[in-house]
Amino acid sequence: MIDEKYRLTQLFDFYGELLTDKQKAVLELYLSEDLGLVEIAENLRVSRQAVYDHVHKASLALVSYEEKLGLLERFQQRTIMLEELRHQLDTSTFANENKAQIMKLIEEIINF
Amino acid sequence: MIDEKYRLTQLFDFYGELLTDKQKAVLELYLSEDLGLVEIAENLRVSRQAVYDHVHKASLALVSYEEKLGLLERFQQRTIMLEELRHQLDTSTFANENKAQIMKLIEEIINF
Repeated sequence: MIDEKYRLTQLFDFYGELLTDKQKAVLELYLSEDLGLVEIAENLRVSRQAVYDHVHKASLALVSYEEKLGLLERFQQRTIMLEELRHQLDTSTFANENKAQIMKLIEEIINF
Repeated sequence: MIDEKYRLTQLFDFYGELLTDKQKAVLELYLSEDLGLVEIAENLRVSRQAVYDHVHKASLALVSYEEKLGLLERFQQRTIMLEELRHQLDTSTFANENKAQIMKLIEEIINF
């Protein structure tokens, strides 16, 4: 369940802007504030079933976007390669004093 | 015009799978085979106006996806930072013999 929410959060970060306003609002509450369906329903004054439907539909849409585009996967693969590069650089010895600057730059790229 | 097609090709590479099959087919011909509207119309046995409409609508959709998600921009910014890192590494002297391996890895990341 936690893994599922984590995955959904990643997908939401990437593709959330393609959802409807209603889906976005519900999913935001569901993911970021970690509320249950009942609390979200009370919050938004809609039925629990409506909240469930929005979460369900929005999740399917996000998964479908990633299936079609694969941009999250591509981005994550690049990050894994960057982490490998960081490791190699970190264990390398530089003849000059550039190392701190280079390590700072790769950190920035990974976190961009 | 060339710049516009180049930009459209980048957007198509990123978001093309979200277009309808018809839009994809027309835009693919328009971008990759560099055909004019008349030739595409003859190719697909539809009117020139229909081709124009598909290209126009598909282009607007692609631009709108990038406006909402900004993933192409984010990817390109990361690439620019990677090129800066490559430059810094290329002009650095390593005390050990890792350099070739490190330069190969950063090349792979940039081209991924």
